[in-house]
Order: sequence, then C-alpha cells, then structure tokens
Amino acid sequence: MEVINRYITIKNHVEGAPQDSDFELRSSPLLLSLEPGSDEVIVKNIYVSIDPGQLNRMKSYSSSQDCSTFAVAMTPGEDIDAYGVGKVVVSGNPKFGKGDIVAGFLNWGGFTVVKPGGMYITIKNHVDGAPQDSDFELRSSPLSLSLDPASHEVIVKNLYVSIDPYQLNRMKSYSSSQQRSNYAVAITPGEDIDTYAVGKVVASGNPKFVKGDLVAGLLKWGDFTVVKPGGMLNKLDPMGFPLSYHVGILGFSGLTAYAGFFEICKPKKGEKVFVSAALGSVGNLVGQFAKALGCYVVGSAGSKEKVALLKEKLGFDGAFNYREETDLKLTLQRYFPDGIDIYFDNVGGDMQEAAVSNMNINGRIAVCGVISEYTDREKRGAPSMIDVIYKRLKIQGFLAGDHMNLFGDFLSTTCDHLRSGKIQPLEDISDGVESIPSALINLFRGQNIGKKIVRIAEE
Amino acid sequence: MEVINRYITIKNHVEGAPQDSDFELRSSPLLLSLEPGSDEVIVKNIYVSIDPGQLNRMKSYSSSQDCSTFAVAMTPGEDIDAYGVGKVVVSGNPKFGKGDIVAGFLNWGGFTVVKPGGMYITIKNHVDGAPQDSDFELRSSPLSLSLDPASHEVIVKNLYVSIDPYQLNRMKSYSSSQQRSNYAVAITPGEDIDTYAVGKVVASGNPKFVKGDLVAGLLKWGDFTVVKPGGMLNKLDPMGFPLSYHVGILGFSGLTAYAGFFEICKPKKGEKVFVSAALGSVGNLVGQFAKALGCYVVGSAGSKEKVALLKEKLGFDGAFNYREETDLKLTLQRYFPDGIDIYFDNVGGDMQEAAVSNMNINGRIAVCGVISEYTDREKRGAPSMIDVIYKRLKIQGFLAGDHMNLFGDFLSTTCDHLRSGKIQPLEDISDGVESIPSALINLFRGQNIGKKIVRIAEE
Repeated sequence: MEVINRYITIKNHVEGAPQDSDFELRSSPLLLSLEPGSDEVIVKNIYVSIDPGQLNRMKSYSSSQDCSTFAVAMTPGEDIDAYGVGKVVVSGNPKFGKGDIVAGFLNWGGFTVVKPGGMYITIKNHVDGAPQDSDFELRSSPLSLSLDPASHEVIVKNLYVSIDPYQLNRMKSYSSSQQRSNYAVAITPGEDIDTYAVGKVVASGNPKFVKGDLVAGLLKWGDFTVVKPGGMLNKLDPMGFPLSYHVGILGFSGLTAYAGFFEICKPKKGEKVFVSAALGSVGNLVGQFAKALGCYVVGSAGSKEKVALLKEKLGFDGAFNYREETDLKLTLQRYFPDGIDIYFDNVGGDMQEAAVSNMNINGRIAVCGVISEYTDREKRGAPSMIDVIYKRLKIQGFLAGDHMNLFGDFLSTTCDHLRSGKIQPLEDISDGVESIPSALINLFRGQNIGKKIVRIAEE
Repeated sequence: MEVINRYITIKNHVEGAPQDSDFELRSSPLLLSLEPGSDEVIVKNIYVSIDPGQLNRMKSYSSSQDCSTFAVAMTPGEDIDAYGVGKVVVSGNPKFGKGDIVAGFLNWGGFTVVKPGGMYITIKNHVDGAPQDSDFELRSSPLSLSLDPASHEVIVKNLYVSIDPYQLNRMKSYSSSQQRSNYAVAITPGEDIDTYAVGKVVASGNPKFVKGDLVAGLLKWGDFTVVKPGGMLNKLDPMGFPLSYHVGILGFSGLTAYAGFFEICKPKKGEKVFVSAALGSVGNLVGQFAKALGCYVVGSAGSKEKVALLKEKLGFDGAFNYREETDLKLTLQRYFPDGIDIYFDNVGGDMQEAAVSNMNINGRIAVCGVISEYTDREKRGAPSMIDVIYKRLKIQGFLAGDHMNLFGDFLSTTCDHLRSGKIQPLEDISDGVESIPSALINLFRGQNIGKKIVRIAEE
C-alpha cells in the first residue's frame, strides 16, 4: 500500500526568529512495505515534540552543531527529526511488531522510516579516574535519518571494534590532549564514541561504496555507524586474514608499533630494545618487529603468565613482572648490563624514569602511551634531564595518524611476517556491544593479553 | 756554566717487584743559564722522596695512571719526578731568587729545570649542592716535566677561560653524566680542571704548534696548561675580534646555541620561540639567532634589569622575571597566546613542565641545560607525557661537541652577524685565576650577564 507522507522541512537556514516563510510542507509517496531482508521499521507518527533547541539546528552555523549528535545541522529540503511517539505499521525488525506503540526520534511528518539503529555504548558522566562499570550506559540508537543519495553518507554494520587506552583521555572532564588531536576529541556524556573498526556497508549514498563492501575506519562503539562525508572510511581487502587482524595487528595498533619503532626509533640490528606493557596491543608487536630485525629485546608486563608468554610464545630475550620489582632502575640494569638503546614507552611514570637512567648515548625513547598517567595525573615520571643532555637522548611523542604514508610498507612487511610465522598475532576478543565497557575497564587492570577487540557481529 | 746532570730513569716498564736491572743512571749536559725572557727556575736537588706509589707509574698499565695527575705513567728513558727539596741555582721567575730553598716536584736526579707552572684552581672536596667558596682551593703547580720534543706536548699560557654551569656536574661525588661524556668526566679533589679556553703557546714539542701561536681548546682553570698529545687544541685565528669572543660567542657557547637552535630545533621564520635563562651565555645567543631569523622570541630571566636588557639591548619581543611569577603555565600562556613552537631549555624543572603544556603540535624542545637540577636533584620537572604524545613533541638533549661539523657554518654566520651588528656580544669578564671560584659560584646565583669568562692574563 502506498500513502502520501506529508512532512515539514526548512526552505532556507533560519538565522533570526523563525517565520512562516522559512518552512515548507512537502509530500512524497511512501510504500508501506519493506524489501525482503530489510530490518527497517515504519512508524506512523502520533505526537512529535517541538523544542526551542531545533532552531540552533536550522542556523547556517551554530557551534552547538559540532558538539552533539542531537544538534546536527539541518539541510534545507531534508526532513526534520524530533523526539516523538508513534505506532508501528510495518516492521522488518524482530524487536518490533505491527501495532506497537514506540517512542524515539521520529520525523516532523506523517510517517517515519526508522532504519536499524541498534545499540551503542556511551558514558553517563566524565571519567576522571580508573573507569568503572557505572560510568557506562548501553543505549539504543534511532538512526531515523533516511539515506538521501545526495547526503553521501554511508551506513556501516560494525563487525570488530578496537578498544584502546587512549579513549579514557577523551572521557575526562579535561585533558589537554582533547584540543590537540582529531583522534582525541572530548567525548560528551550521552554521545556515541568512535574508534578504529572494521565493518560492512549496509547502505551507501557515497559512490565510492556499495552495499556489502568490507570497510575499515572510524566507526562507533555500537551496532551501526552512519559515516558522514569526510569521515575516515576505506574499503578493506582482508588479504586472506581474519577480519579482526585488520582492527589490530594489520590496523592502527600495528601501524602504531611499526611507525613508532621504525620511524621514531630508527633501530639498527643488534641494538638493545626495552618495551613496557610488552603484552599490550602495540608493545607485543614492537617486540616482535625488533626480534625480526635482530635486536636484543626485553619486555615488562604485570603477571607471571604474561612474562612466560613473552619469552616462550613471542621469543623475547628477557621479560619481567614489574609488580615484583622494588627498584626498577636496578631491574633494568640487570636486564641491560650494556644499557638500553631504544625504549618503546607505553606506560610513562617510574618506568620511564628508570629507563632514562639506563639509556645509552644517543638513545631514543618513543612515547606511545602513558597508561600510568591516564588514570592518575600524579603518577608522572620526572626523568633526569642531566641524563637527557649528556646521553643526547631523544624523547619523542607520536601518533600513528601522522604516518599514514607508511601504511603500505607496514602492511606488506607485517603480512609477510605473519605468513612466514615470524610474527604471532595476539588477540583478546570479547563479544557484543554490551561487553565494550568491561573490555575498556579491564585494559586498565592489565587483564588483556594482546590486542583487545570486541566482536560486534559475525560477518 | 754547564754541568753534567745525572738522573735515574727506567729502562723498561716494571710489572713485578722492581729489580736493579730495571733502572738506569743517565747523564746529560745542563747549561746553568736561561734564555732571555724565560721564567724557568733551575733547582739543585737536595732530598727527593722515594714512595711505593711510584711503582704504579712504572707499570705498562695501571688503572691508577688514568686517575690522578700525580700517578701519570712513566715512559722508559724519561726522567722521573717526585716530591723533593732543593735550592734555586738560576731563576727567571720573579717569585724565586738564587739560593732560595724550595719544595715541590723535582726529579730523581741532580738538577731539575722547573718550567713556569703558575697557579690553578682545584676543588677540596666533592660539591653536591650549590658551590661555596670553601669548596675551592688555589694551588701552585710544579710543571717540572722538561719538555722532550718526542713527547709531543705543548705548553700553553692560558689567557681567557670559560666558566660554565656543567662543571658542577663534574664536581659531584656522583652524577650519571660523568660516565657518559668526555666533556663531563668526574673531577677528583686536588686535580686540575679543564675547560674551553684560549691561550698562547709558550713551548711546543708538537710540530703543529710553535711558540707564540694563539690556540683554543681544552685548557686548565689555571695559569698554564701542558696539553698532551690527543688533547683538544687548535690554532686560533682571531679574525679581528677580541680573544674573549673566541671563548664565548665564537667558541663553545656560540656553537652550543647554533647547533641546538638550528640543528635540534630546525626553526622556521615566524615560529614562536621561548628561551629560558635567556641572558645566559647560550640563551642570549639563541634568542639573537632566532630574532635574526625572523622568529617571535620571549625570554625568561631572574631580575628586572635582565628583563630590560633582553627587550632593550637584544630586541626580544617579550621577557619576564620568573621570580615574580606565581604560575608559570599562565605566564607562558600570556606571552604565547598562540602557543610555543620551540623551547630552548636551559633550566629544566617547573619551567619545562609549564613549557610542555604550552607547546604547539610538532613542537621541539632542545634540552641544553638544567640549572635547577644541577644544584638540587629534587627539582626535576615532570612534564605531561600525554602532551608529549598528542602534540607529537620532541624533547632532545644535545652536546655541542657532537656538532663540530657545523663549526665552519656557525663561525661564518656569527661573524657576519657580529660585523653587521645583528648580534650583540654579551660578556661578563673577571680577572685572575683566583676569581674563578666566585665566577662559578655566582653563575648559580644568576649573577652573570651573558657569557662568564675569566681573563687569566693579557695577551
């Protein structure tokens, strides 16, 4: 059955008080049936909310438009979403049946076609210490925007999403990092959270993508992502490897290890390399790259089991449990009687101080993470600058995003090593959107072994 | 009058218990008169000391030989010095007259030709806090080794010697820097102390130098230096500039500023540059190089007068007295509303922390000195590594000695700027060996204006 759906749109951006002449009533035919396999829901709208905040969305520019997904700018001619109540008339989604009364984001119009939105994770409040279960919330997303081909948006079904310590910096009420990098933008409680991930295109208004494409890029901690034009999204060739590899070892964690080790540290065969958090997503790869190059490699980790894994599975020359050591300077002296040439720093704090005092002349420290400082700003290290000067040390921070030019090299090197068995993938996978909070929480408790990934759905 | 001087030497190195056959009595003619202008003293030896410690000097190798100027290795065939008592027979030195009974280092032989040794400064004990007058001692040096042409030694009359904060690290009972650089070797109480300096050759066993040559290199905090083969010594062309310039602005301080700023920081015109201890020997030049390049430059110093000098004499865009500021982070925010691109760090500590938090993305920090940490190891800074990562900062220590390849460029650039008046020399000169301790002490009290130099003698 086809109905005529009447809806309100704006004819132009609205900068002052809204006038009748700013609005238009449009109509378009709507078929009240779904394609086979669609999980859309068509709702007959009953009541829709009229809110002053909508006016900000109608302006040609308002800073609020950048700040919240509930305040996204409206484009003249498009339908307008608002909170509302309605009744399901057709459902392809097993959670809803015809006749259900529903509430959510509906259109200022007669009907709303609600695309599958799924669940997503958000924070309930800013998180300034170690993250707790109670900081997170599982929400359902309306995803009610119909996909206009002119919008160039792409809707992606998320498959594997990355869980990384740096997300905690984005959740803080303040971290200087939030202003400094596109990858560290502050997260507002209630908003969805983006991360590096792999997914599959379910609908595309962008000529570069078609339904069914495998993609990698910045997706959400949730079931689906609407990727706006300009969002980071690339087609993915799995090259015969499991999809999860493309989130970790062949994704940003891998690039971080590769760029940080080869580009920042410029290692030479035979050099002495120390890696902290050596069983983390990046650390384990740095150690393996270093071994593959012919370096002497020692790693630190937080348990006996991890130490055993580093030595036995990953072939590190040495490894120690930092929790059992009372004087990290002496510990490092023991493992590096000839000093450290390269320190790949994932933790900062005391360990960094101890490493600086054991570095050799012309030593290089790549600062990749500061897990100690993320949860407690008092735990900063105070490395000796006398050592930095006299040993001509270089301490350099970096972000993998600055080294995308290396992605090709990184990918071919790493795939070769994976195929020859020189490098072992180390993954720690949980299942379902709802497992995301505990995945992040456990990262800060050191409970992950290798790259932490959440599998949202099977391909 | 000519006499026959008989003296004892070793025929070979002595490794076990000394035997008669290890020694030889030699004789050589000695003219008991001096060349006009010579200030040598010829002593008839009366009693000489026989000490077990001499045996270490006779060994082919003993670690003690590297540790003390009183334990220098003996070369078979050379005369042997020991503590002794004698009587002056000829004197070219106004301090001594014929017939004086003297004590000092004399030879195991009939006569000793004592070359002018002069006075030198040493430390009485290790210095672990701020240096005090009571830590230093003015001693006279015997310089009794006759200059054998085969020895390749050069005797230099010191003219201008450099006073630098890093010397304090060498005086500590322990500093990790002492093992890491040839420029930072530990100083043992009682020993003479080397420094960058300018002097004039008074005697040469090295074919590269002749009497009267002006030279620059590592000389002593004292009247004379015996430069051994391999010691750092170069002929000096004053190029029309005062000799003192070659200790400071055209010497190692200048090279430190040039290499640190241009090589480590890689500045671009228009960048925002912050220099701490901006009126120090290196800081004032970094600021002037930065201004000459077209950067925006702000400096910190420790008094109103210094702040005025920075702005009025050296043309800094801004300057502040750090002693009057309560929150250095806010101070730097005020002077750098658009952030800092380059921080040339001469002080470490709180100032470094504050600078890190005000750095721009891809900012560079050259770590040149840590005057705060030299006198108090508790005053280390704890810069935010989150900032270091997200702003991709590079914190790099350096020593000018690693950048000798730039000396030519540095010299021609700096001479040009001096001639055109783009750069002002800033010198703070005291007179006489005896003023060296207070010169160093006052450096740590911030009482110098520009490069601290002691003039030992007029050319």
